Amino acid sequence: MKERIKKQMAFALEIDKVKNVFRQTHLSHKGRNENDAEHSWHMAVMAYLLREYANEEVDITKVMLMCLVHDIVEIDAGDTYAYDEEGLKTQKAREAAAKERIFSLLPEEQKAEFTALFDEFEAYETAEAKFVHAIDNLQPLMLNNSNNGGDWREHHVTAEQVYKRQGKTKLGSDQLYEITDQIIQDHIRKGNLKESQSGNE
Amino acid sequence: MKERIKKQMAFALEIDKVKNVFRQTHLSHKGRNENDAEHSWHMAVMAYLLREYANEEVDITKVMLMCLVHDIVEIDAGDTYAYDEEGLKTQKAREAAAKERIFSLLPEEQKAEFTALFDEFEAYETAEAKFVHAIDNLQPLMLNNSNNGGDWREHHVTAEQVYKRQGKTKLGSDQLYEITDQIIQDHIRKGNLKESQSGNE
Repeated sequence: MKERIKKQMAFALEIDKVKNVFRQTHLSHKGRNENDAEHSWHMAVMAYLLREYANEEVDITKVMLMCLVHDIVEIDAGDTYAYDEEGLKTQKAREAAAKERIFSLLPEEQKAEFTALFDEFEAYETAEAKFVHAIDNLQPLMLNNSNNGGDWREHHVTAEQVYKRQGKTKLGSDQLYEITDQIIQDHIRKGNLKESQSGNE
Repeated sequence: MKERIKKQMAFALEIDKVKNVFRQTHLSHKGRNENDAEHSWHMAVMAYLLREYANEEVDITKVMLMCLVHDIVEIDAGDTYAYDEEGLKTQKAREAAAKERIFSLLPEEQKAEFTALFDEFEAYETAEAKFVHAIDNLQPLMLNNSNNGGDWREHHVTAEQVYKRQGKTKLGSDQLYEITDQIIQDHIRKGNLKESQSGNE
């Protein structure tokens, strides 16, 4: 096997491990925890389906690819729950080391491409990055909504925390934020989300 | 919520069920069975990564999307193992009914688009369909190879059967077929694949 394709196949096999990185989100119908590969697949399909709602025009190929690869670093760094304040402090450093190790399996120019794509996602500046973040927020919100907010209740998450994260969906899509807001308000009414930490027992 | 986005979100939630359709393939490191969402995610990343090996130039956005949606019908139709002769006889009819039910959740023109994409994959005629089939063959072969051919041994699959399926990889990519052939030959040597049915006990 030639050196180039050998590297590509080594990377392809390595990323199989993403299927064993489990998230806090549960599948619909009160299913098991979701893993990163499933989450990324779901995001890529949703991004394509909902691309008309992006605030700015997006390169949909780049968007889909960003959805597909943005969590690969979690093979080493693990999943950091959106509302885990301690974990979030070390997340950047853990993910930077992972990015270097895993993308280095690829031929040089593909390593550069995937690294740049991950960095673009993290920087949250381009139209594509903002839209992918919107989908990254919406997909677990949709599942959690279908499960009557079970993931929030389990972790005693407050509306304030959810708004802090989901509020950024606006940057990528005002229309998807509208749905998001309706869902959050609904769960506040149902008591699945407390208004703020001080509102908790 | 407006009617159009309501339909799109209903479809997005429905396809969550793909994560519960399990395949005969096992994850690397002798892991659990793989599901269709994980398989589709893996295929889309591999297709992008290996697109330079397609025999003909391909529209990579279409290729990735085809990878992502080609197994959605299995929510209703179930996974048909590549070497299950009985199941293969009824596969088309089961998948046609599933396609109609599931894609009908979408707004009309997106239903038409996803249906056409699935039909194109099935028809095996365009450059994109042939390349996606090549990746659909290579991805489980790669995992099975990493597990010392365990999936073949478990189902007493013969080299003849594997060549009948994997031989079609040539239509999409001569170079990926070269790797495929090396892997199959290696497993024949190791005794993980018998040359033909008559060679079995």
